Amino acid sequence: MALLNGLAADEESSAVLHEPLLLRRSRSNTTSQIAIVGSNPCPIESLDYEFSAAFVVFATSNLGLTLSASLITAFIAPEAAGSGIPEVKAYLNGVDAPAIFSFRTLLVKIVGSILAVSSSLNIGKAGPMVHTGACIAAIMGQGGSKKFRLTWKWLQVFKNDRDRRDLVTCGSAAGIAAAFRAPVGGVLFALEEMASWWRSALLWRAFFTTAVVAIVLRALVDVCLRGECGLFGKGGLIMYDVTSENISYHLSDVPPVLLLAVIGGILGSVYNHLLNKLLQIYNLINRKGTAYKIILACVISISTSCLLFGLPWIASCRPCPSDTSEPCPTIGRSGNYKKFQCPPGYYNDLASLFFNTNDDAIKNLFSKDTDTEFHRTSMLLFFATCFLLSTFSYGIVVPAGLFVPVIVTGAAYGRLVGMCVGSTNLNHGLFAVLGSASLLGGSMRMTVSLCVIILELTDNLLLLPLIMIVLLISKTVADVFNGNIYDLIMTLKGFPYLEAHAEPYMRQLTVGDVVTGPLQIFHGIEKVGNIVHVLKTTGHNGFPVVDEPPLSSSPVLFGLIVRAHLITLLKKKSFLTTPTLLGSDAFSQFSADDFAKKGLDHGDQIGDIELSEEELDMFVDLHPFTNTSPYTVVETMSLSKALILFREVGLRHLLVIPKVSGRVPVVGILTRHDFMPNHILNLHPRLLRSRWRRLRFPLPRLS
Amino acid sequence: MALLNGLAADEESSAVLHEPLLLRRSRSNTTSQIAIVGSNPCPIESLDYEFSAAFVVFATSNLGLTLSASLITAFIAPEAAGSGIPEVKAYLNGVDAPAIFSFRTLLVKIVGSILAVSSSLNIGKAGPMVHTGACIAAIMGQGGSKKFRLTWKWLQVFKNDRDRRDLVTCGSAAGIAAAFRAPVGGVLFALEEMASWWRSALLWRAFFTTAVVAIVLRALVDVCLRGECGLFGKGGLIMYDVTSENISYHLSDVPPVLLLAVIGGILGSVYNHLLNKLLQIYNLINRKGTAYKIILACVISISTSCLLFGLPWIASCRPCPSDTSEPCPTIGRSGNYKKFQCPPGYYNDLASLFFNTNDDAIKNLFSKDTDTEFHRTSMLLFFATCFLLSTFSYGIVVPAGLFVPVIVTGAAYGRLVGMCVGSTNLNHGLFAVLGSASLLGGSMRMTVSLCVIILELTDNLLLLPLIMIVLLISKTVADVFNGNIYDLIMTLKGFPYLEAHAEPYMRQLTVGDVVTGPLQIFHGIEKVGNIVHVLKTTGHNGFPVVDEPPLSSSPVLFGLIVRAHLITLLKKKSFLTTPTLLGSDAFSQFSADDFAKKGLDHGDQIGDIELSEEELDMFVDLHPFTNTSPYTVVETMSLSKALILFREVGLRHLLVIPKVSGRVPVVGILTRHDFMPNHILNLHPRLLRSRWRRLRFPLPRLS
Repeated sequence: MALLNGLAADEESSAVLHEPLLLRRSRSNTTSQIAIVGSNPCPIESLDYEFSAAFVVFATSNLGLTLSASLITAFIAPEAAGSGIPEVKAYLNGVDAPAIFSFRTLLVKIVGSILAVSSSLNIGKAGPMVHTGACIAAIMGQGGSKKFRLTWKWLQVFKNDRDRRDLVTCGSAAGIAAAFRAPVGGVLFALEEMASWWRSALLWRAFFTTAVVAIVLRALVDVCLRGECGLFGKGGLIMYDVTSENISYHLSDVPPVLLLAVIGGILGSVYNHLLNKLLQIYNLINRKGTAYKIILACVISISTSCLLFGLPWIASCRPCPSDTSEPCPTIGRSGNYKKFQCPPGYYNDLASLFFNTNDDAIKNLFSKDTDTEFHRTSMLLFFATCFLLSTFSYGIVVPAGLFVPVIVTGAAYGRLVGMCVGSTNLNHGLFAVLGSASLLGGSMRMTVSLCVIILELTDNLLLLPLIMIVLLISKTVADVFNGNIYDLIMTLKGFPYLEAHAEPYMRQLTVGDVVTGPLQIFHGIEKVGNIVHVLKTTGHNGFPVVDEPPLSSSPVLFGLIVRAHLITLLKKKSFLTTPTLLGSDAFSQFSADDFAKKGLDHGDQIGDIELSEEELDMFVDLHPFTNTSPYTVVETMSLSKALILFREVGLRHLLVIPKVSGRVPVVGILTRHDFMPNHILNLHPRLLRSRWRRLRFPLPRLS
Repeated sequence: MALLNGLAADEESSAVLHEPLLLRRSRSNTTSQIAIVGSNPCPIESLDYEFSAAFVVFATSNLGLTLSASLITAFIAPEAAGSGIPEVKAYLNGVDAPAIFSFRTLLVKIVGSILAVSSSLNIGKAGPMVHTGACIAAIMGQGGSKKFRLTWKWLQVFKNDRDRRDLVTCGSAAGIAAAFRAPVGGVLFALEEMASWWRSALLWRAFFTTAVVAIVLRALVDVCLRGECGLFGKGGLIMYDVTSENISYHLSDVPPVLLLAVIGGILGSVYNHLLNKLLQIYNLINRKGTAYKIILACVISISTSCLLFGLPWIASCRPCPSDTSEPCPTIGRSGNYKKFQCPPGYYNDLASLFFNTNDDAIKNLFSKDTDTEFHRTSMLLFFATCFLLSTFSYGIVVPAGLFVPVIVTGAAYGRLVGMCVGSTNLNHGLFAVLGSASLLGGSMRMTVSLCVIILELTDNLLLLPLIMIVLLISKTVADVFNGNIYDLIMTLKGFPYLEAHAEPYMRQLTVGDVVTGPLQIFHGIEKVGNIVHVLKTTGHNGFPVVDEPPLSSSPVLFGLIVRAHLITLLKKKSFLTTPTLLGSDAFSQFSADDFAKKGLDHGDQIGDIELSEEELDMFVDLHPFTNTSPYTVVETMSLSKALILFREVGLRHLLVIPKVSGRVPVVGILTRHDFMPNHILNLHPRLLRSRWRRLRFPLPRLS
């Protein structure tokens, strides 16, 4: 993170290359030191060239950085684009999107995120850091990267679904912990937003992970406090220290805060709606080809540069305060009072916000004793620009987070509310904190984790009751209109995310209503050719194994075998010439590692196995390799109950058995897709869609 | 909580009644103002009477308070004794202990806890407050209290298992939130320690509950800041403010902290072990009768008084510091420098800790700039006394918590370590915070929630990395020796608590291995007499309903019916003279409320229903009232898989069906008790118990 900060600061120093030019200009005009609104007191011809040069340098460096970020993302790892949080969340729900955790994606995510954040785009770094953490965890979970020759023997123990999922959860906790220096917030984020299944042991492990993050950060801060970090600054464990000696607020301060929360909730849902629509448009553009993706990124970068450079001209120059500890106006790379086009002794408040890293902008906005620093018009402009830029910048083909832009936008919104409310016991800095909370609550819809993250960001425990109330209200208000931003993105990406709750109409359906055929069944001792044919012609991943006479007196469901194990069996080619039972001797040719969970995208495909005609006519005994006690439900069970079993136990396949015996012992297999609302609606168009999105069968009396 | 504090302070003022006597004594001895260790400079005969009188007043008032607390607990609601956290935790796991949430228990818990905490016993109030919160929630969940005429119609919606469980979870979160003014800590405590099942919606609701607690507390603090609270003091949202301007610690400070954590972990497990053994002894005493219970409580009270009054005589008198803002020595009810037997200008450090509320003692110990206030011997004595008193006081028949005693003991331990380590960047107050963390971690074994609670108690974010590391190490060290203190108490109380993980030996057993008979089955249309007979002769709560010819072609498992619904049917007496199918007309005689979950201990018993001979010969159609899709497992399923289904979905009954059809359609019912390790060990004594408590079947090659 320090690295990101540093690079962002580097870029920033290129962005202020024009300042000496402006300085010279204003020195020659010391007589006209009056606050000037949006006009230039100098003869235009003498400055035209200097400002143009400054803009060209600013815009070109931004464009160069954006272009490099989008090029590596588009050509090397398109999976690294965007936040990554929806992908990780879907993975933890059981959806393996291809290549999201590859080593390639990891590298592009890190480098691309640094480039993109440095390029003045209004995007965040928290999301990419969560994805980075999850990526590292997943690569460890699959025993390293074979392609890049980074493998460790001892990591083999994690080669199973559960451990890998646990590692990824811990990795995403570490991401937030590092991004916001909020170790407890990181654990809670992983718990509240990311994880679909949670165990007490996982809580403990995630806590351990973030403790390590906190200690490493603390050690780095130690180094920086000794001044050995150079450009990276002094650092500190608390990012935005807003502690006032005595925050005392009373009942009269609560109504404006409630109003702030309600409007923040509405703004949050508008933000989600706008982002959702924009992403749909961007998807159409991006689908046309890689060139279009990159052009889109460049257009956004240029527009951003124009806005950032153009808007400060509208803002008025404000006289420097006399009691500030900082130099004013700031000439150099970092500070609260940017000069921009103003005469000496004056500063441009909008430029101070724009030509700053996002972190410093937040720090400015959250600060106490700065109630007079910003003008209302500047704040409104800043808020509107951030709101629009953050929605327009997210969908382009670079790694981009949503957290920081939402925090900045929210802080500007909160300051605006504070300015409109006038004098209360809360200063504008505290209003900015509450504004960030309300927009985060309205957009991300988390409660406890956001509360703790804000607490850890600002170290202000006295504000806790107000932050809690703001988060609750904004979340409740926003929930009326649409869903969580990450859920919207997941829907757009088409991930079959399995919700924890059953939809009301599922109570009216039975499992038999959604099971669709044809069902592929294997016999306990199956012909090799048959297995190859079925594996090649279907995409199923699990197959019921049924024993029939003479192996049993009547057809009996023996168990369930998965595709990966069948492929392992075919690869070993230890076939039988006659159909005989092998028993546990069958294992002698296999090691445990053969049946271990393969790395993502590293599983063998059926097409890769070549078998002779002779081998195809042989047999294989599936009994020793079959899961003999799969979870089953009766075909008459209500769909919502089956969903609860499927979701709570975390299954991939659920066998459906007949109510009355005597027929085939299994009538179908339920997978994740059978529980998707779209699938069910296609099967049962009779289900009515009401205005409130609750689906139901038409009432019998009406029909 | 403010109430508790206030009453504790009241008691405290009675505990220092003797101070004027001592004052007079010391005034007559102003010539001997030298630090005197454990000796009395006055002529003994002149003071004998005064000290005896003071002790008698002190001990008598303590005894009176303890006696009242134990009398109401023993005679009115024995369920209110102890912390209540194990009972609530068991309830949330699915164990309904009788009367733990009755209105009677609630009243006794509140009054008894106030009396007990006031009586100088070394017990806490957090546990009782959690139980109180859970109690209020549970009473709301059952629609109020019928007995006490407190019922509300709108509460009827909560009359089901899930909503009641959610309410109780929120109630326990509110308890911790109120006890420690830690709203986020309360949510996490409910999540990490209390809840067995957790949903995202529940997180949100618990957060809302504690937000209300935080706001009410904030409002009360507002009133108190205006000085309108009288005895209750000024209050404040942060209990122990330990913020130092710049806490800077370096790598060299870490080793002593690690040592503190390891020893803290060991002490925590010793604490658990000692408490466990003492509770076993106390159980033997308490079982002999109510009189024994009360005598035990009185003995502990008198011993506590003797120790508290006697031990300060050993401590040396220390000269008052010149730079303190408080009056020294303190003559009155509250303060850091108690005079006790010392001459003017001197204070007794041990008396300052003993004759104080626990809250003030913690505040003293956590304070910065007090490194010279306490002597090492005094601290050692204080630590040992707290350690012993807190273990000896818990098991007596009064409402008693464990949190605060462990925090006090841990703070003393931390200070001791700080004193032994000598000069570091961490002051003794911070060592006390870390000591509390280590003992809490070693005893309670929580991580995230304790971390946040300590954070909210002390408002010191910079200490976070150290607190995390201390909690993790002490928990890990203590886990080697024994379990969580609440789990130990639950085992002692015999609650069938269902762990989330399966024991390793369960993988070697099938469901069929643990199902025991005889199985009671009802037919779809059953004779009333038969139902009454089965309900009277068995204690089962769920019965499979099987349809046989002529209702179906072969025996078919129709579903599962529960005892409560059968009793409702019998109570309505709408029987059939001939065995006929009723269909959904059967519901016309019932309202939804008839089948709603009854309040705890308010369900009707089978013995209460009187039926004539004629009625016993009639029939009842069970089909409309049967759960037609119960969860089922095949008899050959591994026990550990069945346990995961049972635990994750939160079942009470799990039907076992045969592998091969043709026999009876159901072979048994699994309940919680079938998964208890004790039950399984009794059934399969062949399972080997190794030194490390892992059970397994003997290896085939060895046997």
